[in-house]
Amino acid sequence: MSIVLRVNTTTKEIIREELKEEYRFLGGRSLIARVLTDEVDPTCDPLGAENKLILCTTLLAGTTLPMAHRLSAGGKSPLTGGIKEANSGGTAASLLARHGIKMIILEGLPQTNDWYILHIQKDGSSQLVDATDYVGLNNYDLAAKIQERFGKNVGIISIGLAGERGYRNSTLQLIDASTGYPSRAAARGGLGAVMGAKKIKAVVIERAANPYEFPYADKERYEAVRKKYIQRVLSSPRTESMQKVGTMSMIDFTSTVAALPVRNFSGQFFEQAEAIKSKAFVERAFIGGGRNKEGCQPGCIVRCSNRFHTKDGEYLTSGLEYETVALCGANCGIADFDVIARLDRMCDDLGVDTIETGATIAVCMEAGKISFGDGEGAIALLQEMIDGTEFGRLLGQGTEAVGKALGVKRIPTVKGQALPAYDPRSIKGLGVTYATSAMGADHTAGMTLGPGIDPSKKDFQVERSRQSQMVAAVTDSFTCSFGWGELNNEEILPEIMASLYGGEWTYGQIMNIGKETLKLERAFNQAAGLTEVDDCLPAFFYNEISAIDTVFDISAEEMQELFNY
Amino acid sequence: MSIVLRVNTTTKEIIREELKEEYRFLGGRSLIARVLTDEVDPTCDPLGAENKLILCTTLLAGTTLPMAHRLSAGGKSPLTGGIKEANSGGTAASLLARHGIKMIILEGLPQTNDWYILHIQKDGSSQLVDATDYVGLNNYDLAAKIQERFGKNVGIISIGLAGERGYRNSTLQLIDASTGYPSRAAARGGLGAVMGAKKIKAVVIERAANPYEFPYADKERYEAVRKKYIQRVLSSPRTESMQKVGTMSMIDFTSTVAALPVRNFSGQFFEQAEAIKSKAFVERAFIGGGRNKEGCQPGCIVRCSNRFHTKDGEYLTSGLEYETVALCGANCGIADFDVIARLDRMCDDLGVDTIETGATIAVCMEAGKISFGDGEGAIALLQEMIDGTEFGRLLGQGTEAVGKALGVKRIPTVKGQALPAYDPRSIKGLGVTYATSAMGADHTAGMTLGPGIDPSKKDFQVERSRQSQMVAAVTDSFTCSFGWGELNNEEILPEIMASLYGGEWTYGQIMNIGKETLKLERAFNQAAGLTEVDDCLPAFFYNEISAIDTVFDISAEEMQELFNY
Repeated sequence: MSIVLRVNTTTKEIIREELKEEYRFLGGRSLIARVLTDEVDPTCDPLGAENKLILCTTLLAGTTLPMAHRLSAGGKSPLTGGIKEANSGGTAASLLARHGIKMIILEGLPQTNDWYILHIQKDGSSQLVDATDYVGLNNYDLAAKIQERFGKNVGIISIGLAGERGYRNSTLQLIDASTGYPSRAAARGGLGAVMGAKKIKAVVIERAANPYEFPYADKERYEAVRKKYIQRVLSSPRTESMQKVGTMSMIDFTSTVAALPVRNFSGQFFEQAEAIKSKAFVERAFIGGGRNKEGCQPGCIVRCSNRFHTKDGEYLTSGLEYETVALCGANCGIADFDVIARLDRMCDDLGVDTIETGATIAVCMEAGKISFGDGEGAIALLQEMIDGTEFGRLLGQGTEAVGKALGVKRIPTVKGQALPAYDPRSIKGLGVTYATSAMGADHTAGMTLGPGIDPSKKDFQVERSRQSQMVAAVTDSFTCSFGWGELNNEEILPEIMASLYGGEWTYGQIMNIGKETLKLERAFNQAAGLTEVDDCLPAFFYNEISAIDTVFDISAEEMQELFNY
Repeated sequence: MSIVLRVNTTTKEIIREELKEEYRFLGGRSLIARVLTDEVDPTCDPLGAENKLILCTTLLAGTTLPMAHRLSAGGKSPLTGGIKEANSGGTAASLLARHGIKMIILEGLPQTNDWYILHIQKDGSSQLVDATDYVGLNNYDLAAKIQERFGKNVGIISIGLAGERGYRNSTLQLIDASTGYPSRAAARGGLGAVMGAKKIKAVVIERAANPYEFPYADKERYEAVRKKYIQRVLSSPRTESMQKVGTMSMIDFTSTVAALPVRNFSGQFFEQAEAIKSKAFVERAFIGGGRNKEGCQPGCIVRCSNRFHTKDGEYLTSGLEYETVALCGANCGIADFDVIARLDRMCDDLGVDTIETGATIAVCMEAGKISFGDGEGAIALLQEMIDGTEFGRLLGQGTEAVGKALGVKRIPTVKGQALPAYDPRSIKGLGVTYATSAMGADHTAGMTLGPGIDPSKKDFQVERSRQSQMVAAVTDSFTCSFGWGELNNEEILPEIMASLYGGEWTYGQIMNIGKETLKLERAFNQAAGLTEVDDCLPAFFYNEISAIDTVFDISAEEMQELFNY
């Protein structure tokens, strides 16, 4: 796991390098923070030649540990103007690891209008392949055409029209291991537009003929801890719930405490919540041949994903997740899974983030462009994004741009990125995470729900968010977050590191990787021109009382305490 | 000149205060910097309750000095997100001074949808008058209706639909002394939207029955220096040129050195320049009854303004200025005064900045929305702004918002505000001013043309800009800039201050007011979240070579030297 491919999109040169020794214990988010710090001017234009798109695997990828193969994408975000790491499941990380490739860096900017595919062949060699025939395709057609030419089982990291057109809300899509469709996304922060600016339509990874073997420092010790870890995962009630329902299990809680965003973060309860709660979800999900217990990456044993079919039995989308149901559903006043799943499919196909898109549509509803609850209207807006009408292109610029253009006052964003599906008046620790994370509003950057703290009270939320953000930075450096609950303890995690890399590791040492990552990310943002003023929630969360009689009441000064790591 | 009217738009209470002693030697821009620093949270929402709209007169207003009555408007800018002072001629400052009113502060935010006019009566008392009948009017109809009710000679500070709708490119319009039309504007930075948010449609000032007398410290001494000043102004070649041609005299120079912006700051020469140079301007200006040598404020002896009629003899606009001809003309590839004057009239009527609007239209042309040179297309876009179509409302948000929404890469803005009519590759000192002024790109913030320095070379431009910015901050605190050339010297200026206020003044002391103002403004912006990253020109000025073979080559680091005051 030490190969770096450096692709100069100006000269078309591909250089194969050894991973620097000081990057050895980094992966995913921590590696991206370091490389961006070392190589990218924080003041650069995110869509210019100076920005880089980094694709790298998590630190534990390449081992036989389940859930270890996660792909991180990074660069300066066109959406937030700050540092960005977005990660995804799918098959790409595992396939890259089989080549021993840890990282791909896309650099420069083409002088011509020609598009390319970066093709990594069976033998590990790589080349830029003319992509003229692929330009203009959205992800589903694109993946089918790529699979037709390069084989059914290639890994793909691709952009749809959104990335081609520079939508600041564009994703990188990856192939889901269970379905073979491009339904997994490194979704947040518009990194699809960074790849699009470099005119790389896709990275295609063939399965390595001679797979790379991870150089376990102590294989026996590793096997023992791996076994222990697997047992814990399989016997965890968390895993059971993830297999039965998946991330959608969250909705029963959030809808009860007014944390589920409803009609552009109105703070109100959703009258139609029953229609989209987990019971209804599971019932609908099995109609037409839908399935749960799907793993998005090879070898996954949590298998929290699902495939969602039309009632007529046709595949529609895979991994219909809580965030999508919340933002494209309740937050738009929509309570119909068939509409929401269709929106999800359209987002994946075009290559836009479902969180940002749902928030954007809700802001259009707030502006009176269409009504809350108007599912067909929402689909029509997404169709405009696909068609690239003038208004559709504006929608692609994200919630803040649209809110400002339409003169909407309640714009639910931090650092220009839309809030995920937890109202910060109900779950205040997440409000702190949204406000202070270098990523912009991001629930994965520091989930604060957990024992001991009332999420609707302000007490201890800053401390909880600080701790969670540190852990999240480690999680996103190591593995998928859905096996992390059983990995993240003093017994398993240091033992895994020791058996993989040798030496002895303490839990604190590992957490330190997270802390250092947070510091680098914040320094990058400061150098990019972000300040304390960007570490705030929109005013309406402070002013408008929620259905559980709360406002967000942690002041900007109190939140600045978070940075005393 | 010591009365402050504090108008609470939430409670409708009007409080009459004495000007604080420490504000005594401040006026216009310097007073605004102090009051905003003292009273407004820099992180506030520019269109929210915490922002204030400050209207105040220059320091020399209320005296018998010609060109002394300038009105400054200030607040946190909805366009730049930073501090903003925009000033204007017209009759309002002189009429306020006759009441002894130095400053009006509009505070709070109404809870209802009712609009008001702030009415200052003959006897000096003031009240909020129901404005239901005036809402929805643009400035020309509005002024006519106000004049009909309150008398022909009232001063008016008003907003059109742009300010009502919260366009971030909206102005405050003032009545031109010569024509009686609302053709003067405190144009930059969207302060019209701040007044609109407070639901004040206009400030109407009747002529004071018992005019305030300025308490000259030494009237005899004052009369002597006043006489000397007037003689200098009248015998200055600058004044002659201003009377003959006005600000349009600039175009012969800028079009020759590729400083005139052409087709969205392409850096190229304008093939049709002859059609809009000063000779052509003067020829056209006199057709149909047009006139030069107009004074926009009572008692002006420079009289740089003009009135522009249609060829059929109908009044069209007044003060057709160089900036408007450059931005709405050459920068859009338009070389027809009849089209440009019509655009100017539409801008004044709607209440939007002609610089920002011209830059916005050019960005639409760059995006292919209409073609460069398409005058009727430009008028149609402005009509969309007036009609409030969805795209029109987007246009009202300014050049940067439109550029981003349309995916344009060459967006000529600094701190979100469009560049005025001097290409920074040709006049590099102005590039420094654009980049570093707290106001955003603003030529009045520090004009650097002058003897001794080649404007197309980088040498000494930072020093020149620093000096000019300091002087400009004084100018905008004291008087109109067009008499300033004869005022700004060690002989006249300290003598005026001493005779007005007593004591002895040095030139350095006066310049210090400018320096302190710049420091306050910068501190406000820093607290608002702006950083060094906001002190840059768009990259294309560094990368694209101009017709005189220059690029802007003063680095961000070099420009930061400017702040070593």
